[in-house]
Amino acid sequence: MTAFNWRCEAVDGRARAGVLETAHGPVATPTFMPVGTVGTVKAMTMDAVRSTGAGIVLGNTYHLMLRPGAERVRALGGLHRMMDWPGPILTDSGGFQVMSLGALRKLDQDGVTFQSHIDGSKHRLDPERSTAIQHALDATITMCFDECPALPAQADAIAASMRLSMRWAARSREAFVQREGYGQFGIVQGGVEPELRAESAKALCDIGFEGYAIGGLAVGEGQELMFATLDVTTPLLPGDKPRYLMGVGTPDDLLGGVERGVDMFDCVMPTRAGRTARAYTERGTLNLRNARFATDARPISPDCDCLACSRHSRAYLHHLFRADEILGPMLLTWHNLAYYQRMMRGLRTAIVAGDLAAHGAALRAAWAQGDWTEEEWPQPSIPPVS
Amino acid sequence: MTAFNWRCEAVDGRARAGVLETAHGPVATPTFMPVGTVGTVKAMTMDAVRSTGAGIVLGNTYHLMLRPGAERVRALGGLHRMMDWPGPILTDSGGFQVMSLGALRKLDQDGVTFQSHIDGSKHRLDPERSTAIQHALDATITMCFDECPALPAQADAIAASMRLSMRWAARSREAFVQREGYGQFGIVQGGVEPELRAESAKALCDIGFEGYAIGGLAVGEGQELMFATLDVTTPLLPGDKPRYLMGVGTPDDLLGGVERGVDMFDCVMPTRAGRTARAYTERGTLNLRNARFATDARPISPDCDCLACSRHSRAYLHHLFRADEILGPMLLTWHNLAYYQRMMRGLRTAIVAGDLAAHGAALRAAWAQGDWTEEEWPQPSIPPVS
Repeated sequence: MTAFNWRCEAVDGRARAGVLETAHGPVATPTFMPVGTVGTVKAMTMDAVRSTGAGIVLGNTYHLMLRPGAERVRALGGLHRMMDWPGPILTDSGGFQVMSLGALRKLDQDGVTFQSHIDGSKHRLDPERSTAIQHALDATITMCFDECPALPAQADAIAASMRLSMRWAARSREAFVQREGYGQFGIVQGGVEPELRAESAKALCDIGFEGYAIGGLAVGEGQELMFATLDVTTPLLPGDKPRYLMGVGTPDDLLGGVERGVDMFDCVMPTRAGRTARAYTERGTLNLRNARFATDARPISPDCDCLACSRHSRAYLHHLFRADEILGPMLLTWHNLAYYQRMMRGLRTAIVAGDLAAHGAALRAAWAQGDWTEEEWPQPSIPPVS
Repeated sequence: MTAFNWRCEAVDGRARAGVLETAHGPVATPTFMPVGTVGTVKAMTMDAVRSTGAGIVLGNTYHLMLRPGAERVRALGGLHRMMDWPGPILTDSGGFQVMSLGALRKLDQDGVTFQSHIDGSKHRLDPERSTAIQHALDATITMCFDECPALPAQADAIAASMRLSMRWAARSREAFVQREGYGQFGIVQGGVEPELRAESAKALCDIGFEGYAIGGLAVGEGQELMFATLDVTTPLLPGDKPRYLMGVGTPDDLLGGVERGVDMFDCVMPTRAGRTARAYTERGTLNLRNARFATDARPISPDCDCLACSRHSRAYLHHLFRADEILGPMLLTWHNLAYYQRMMRGLRTAIVAGDLAAHGAALRAAWAQGDWTEEEWPQPSIPPVS
């Protein structure tokens, strides 16, 4: 068996290139984890997910505990086997999603009682239960059960919430069953208050985890405050453990996160955008429902080798979305995940080459430039119909 | 270039095994054509369609002329290139679907004026326009523009409709531009009246087509009358041309059609069923939403090598449909098309072996038997979670 371990291979500024070793295989970092909420990366076969180069995917404890249920997943051989993903899987703790239920949930010092958004049935999550569920799912990486307050909030509310999360982190660690090649990550909270982030980071390091996540960001505070919070937080985390920025983000957010020493990311953006006709490219985003794409015979991007770009035109994708055809989300989700993975590979290569500053500047300049003009990239000639 | 040609390789009773040669490659018959309504076989990539062994797909003139439009498809290199299917494509004439519009369409002796179901815009189809549109789409096989009355109907109404369709068939033939490897099929009408079917078959043979379709069936008359009509119709068609039974049907319908000398079929059943949790198997159909599948760790069928069956359990598919995940329709459509293609290959093999009667009886007995019991086919043992 392989020990759970993150090995640093190169550093460029604060950015790190490494390899995460797990019971379910290695993952090159920095890495983006596609979100597989209820045991499926929406609109994708796992073969397609693999083909984009993804090395690790995420599952959601809240969704899976409600449907099909943690014991059902265990009976089906665990999440890896059920969803056909033998590689590493990280599961969240359910904390963030339970908090989003609003009136349907009731918080106490011990945990959270909530009603299912599906059928109104009553459930409870606390550090022990969340950890046990993630064990039943067979998560390669288990997350601590935490509370994540919405921003903006008063500093004392943030502080109280963070301290609650730290007590829960200790209980989560206690409940975690150590297994060779499996790991558990603590989650730094504290909003955008540097002192609270420092207090939280220290509390977690005192407990000791296989990795450290930065939670409570990308909840409305804006990119500038998010980056400022990363600037004060990542230096407080151990240099030999992986760092995971939860729920982030746009390609620009990922670049900024990597520059600030983050190794792992997850976000629904590329998959959700794939279902709403929004394409990520080296030149920013395109809304493929826009009428100008109806006659555009070029693929989405000249730099992409996904199925959509190697076989189909923007005009065809436009048509699929206009006609509400399932193949539209299938092809565009594939493209978007391929873009995210390609971008992350590019960042890793740049870090290894010690070239991240120039590479990042080039990425930002290209995003700002907007879609390729037809002068830069002409429409392909289409042979006349016989 | 290849001439458009159907070559008989074996006969067993009235059933035929052959090869259809076209400008876009050969197709082994009997064959089932997956329906790709607006330029996509719903919920499938064309790689997945190919992997099932499909040799020819169908496109719908009515849908494609409205969206994205025939000229748009032509500008994008034709339907083959637009949808990434270099193999043969058959397009219907739009006649059947326009007739289904009810109050939105007005029939005259020259053609049909109708309103789009999408935006209410006014359009017209007649034999010349339908043929030109199918040319613009680059259809390998063009269908004559016909009228298809709903059954039951008075015999004189059926007769008048059939004779109108025969006049339109002559105009469709006139409008068809002969190209090497391309063909046009006439459509026998006449409801369930043997004399009208005979009159229609003779009219079409007098015109002369590359193949002959049997239309106006599977519109409510029931399987017995459909088979009886085939019994009197297929013997009237040339022995050296392919025969296509339009819009049919269940696996049992296909078997009965093949036994009566039909070579080609199309139907939305396997794809539509794939989106509504209905699985076709050697043992009949299963509704995967049924609660009994929630804990069934077996794949859909032990005889199938589709992606769903080679990687996933019935319980996972049940979960995907309960959770309204796109992957459910993706996997089950794949499975259903794989089943249809495998069944057609089995029929062809049986015809070549002169064994169709016994093979057909065995298929029917297995369908009637119902789902495999757990005694016949035990649940796989699932390794315990570490």
